[in-house]
Amino acid sequence: MSKVRCQITTSLDGYVAGPNQSRENPLGEGGEHLHDWAVPTKTFRALHGEQRGGETGINDDVLREALDNVGATILGRNMFGPVRGPWGRDPWHGWWGDDPPFNHPVFVLTHHPRDPLSMQGGTTFYFVTDGIESALEQAREAAGGKDVTIGGGASAVQQYLAAGLLDELDIHVAPVLLGGGERLFDKLGARKVRLESVRVLAGAGVAHLKYRVVK
Amino acid sequence: MSKVRCQITTSLDGYVAGPNQSRENPLGEGGEHLHDWAVPTKTFRALHGEQRGGETGINDDVLREALDNVGATILGRNMFGPVRGPWGRDPWHGWWGDDPPFNHPVFVLTHHPRDPLSMQGGTTFYFVTDGIESALEQAREAAGGKDVTIGGGASAVQQYLAAGLLDELDIHVAPVLLGGGERLFDKLGARKVRLESVRVLAGAGVAHLKYRVVK
Repeated sequence: MSKVRCQITTSLDGYVAGPNQSRENPLGEGGEHLHDWAVPTKTFRALHGEQRGGETGINDDVLREALDNVGATILGRNMFGPVRGPWGRDPWHGWWGDDPPFNHPVFVLTHHPRDPLSMQGGTTFYFVTDGIESALEQAREAAGGKDVTIGGGASAVQQYLAAGLLDELDIHVAPVLLGGGERLFDKLGARKVRLESVRVLAGAGVAHLKYRVVK
Repeated sequence: MSKVRCQITTSLDGYVAGPNQSRENPLGEGGEHLHDWAVPTKTFRALHGEQRGGETGINDDVLREALDNVGATILGRNMFGPVRGPWGRDPWHGWWGDDPPFNHPVFVLTHHPRDPLSMQGGTTFYFVTDGIESALEQAREAAGGKDVTIGGGASAVQQYLAAGLLDELDIHVAPVLLGGGERLFDKLGARKVRLESVRVLAGAGVAHLKYRVVK
């Protein structure tokens, strides 16, 4: 059966974004350094339209593997954009411009209905208002046997983890202390989540920790 | 020059102890699993008086290295014991019984003066009431050229890190989610701490992440 995976970068103190996130600074203060390990890789560059150059090696391998065999992505609303409340007349089209780096269906968790939004490169954003289980069901269907990835933010990951719906967690720990911001692990509630370490890899400037959720 | 080091185990969600710590349960709920990687090692057993047996390998190597060349330890008061306020007439002698696993001078940060307490095996607890800098000065002196280790808890580590007094941080990440308790990284304040990854090692059931603090 296809898996529900999450791959996400945190600071050493556990934040996926620094303090004072804003439209101009979506990763918060200092948060831009979280992805210093990923940005120079061949895979990252290719995903953002730069087909030549880029680093190969462990970081590139890990990123390529994380993106491989993914047929659909689920995003929390804040991960899709900074807008709150109803979508309005001139709605936000995502952080990523006309050609978002997904190239498959993306399901955005929101309380506010909106028609699907088709972008270039095969990315269509679907807006799901009836909860995380429904979003997962739709994403599985759309993924056609491939895996589904929870693309963040922290709140979406927490909800899927707490609901026992996540199979695999791939955490890239950047050697950065942000001192505040949005923590990956928070509000897990009383549910006991059991993990099994799958592997630990030393990338350049990052530790890749992969876990399987024990059901 | 001798270094100021810290080696500490955290859960994947960043806790050094689980929720509801008590005298009976000093590591809090679930916290006893944090050290599952260390307890079976040859080095841990030897430190606790069991000279035979024990696992060798990466976990044992890392633990032995962490304890090697350490001449003095600094502990926060909660790490020394559960007692709060003045020490009283029948004072607490530490969590570790008559022969604590330090075998060198240990400086306990406290607001309440107390005479030094000599235990078996070369451990003497000194109670320092005039702050973290003074404790470090005394510990350096006592270490006689060897390194000083900050033995925890989280608050002591945070204070030394925030004051720019820590040189090296060796974090053992256990594949456990505690969901609450005492976070290693908290209250760092506005000070920007810069880290450099020294190494990442995959132990059995634990990831060893070692960082140098960039001064």
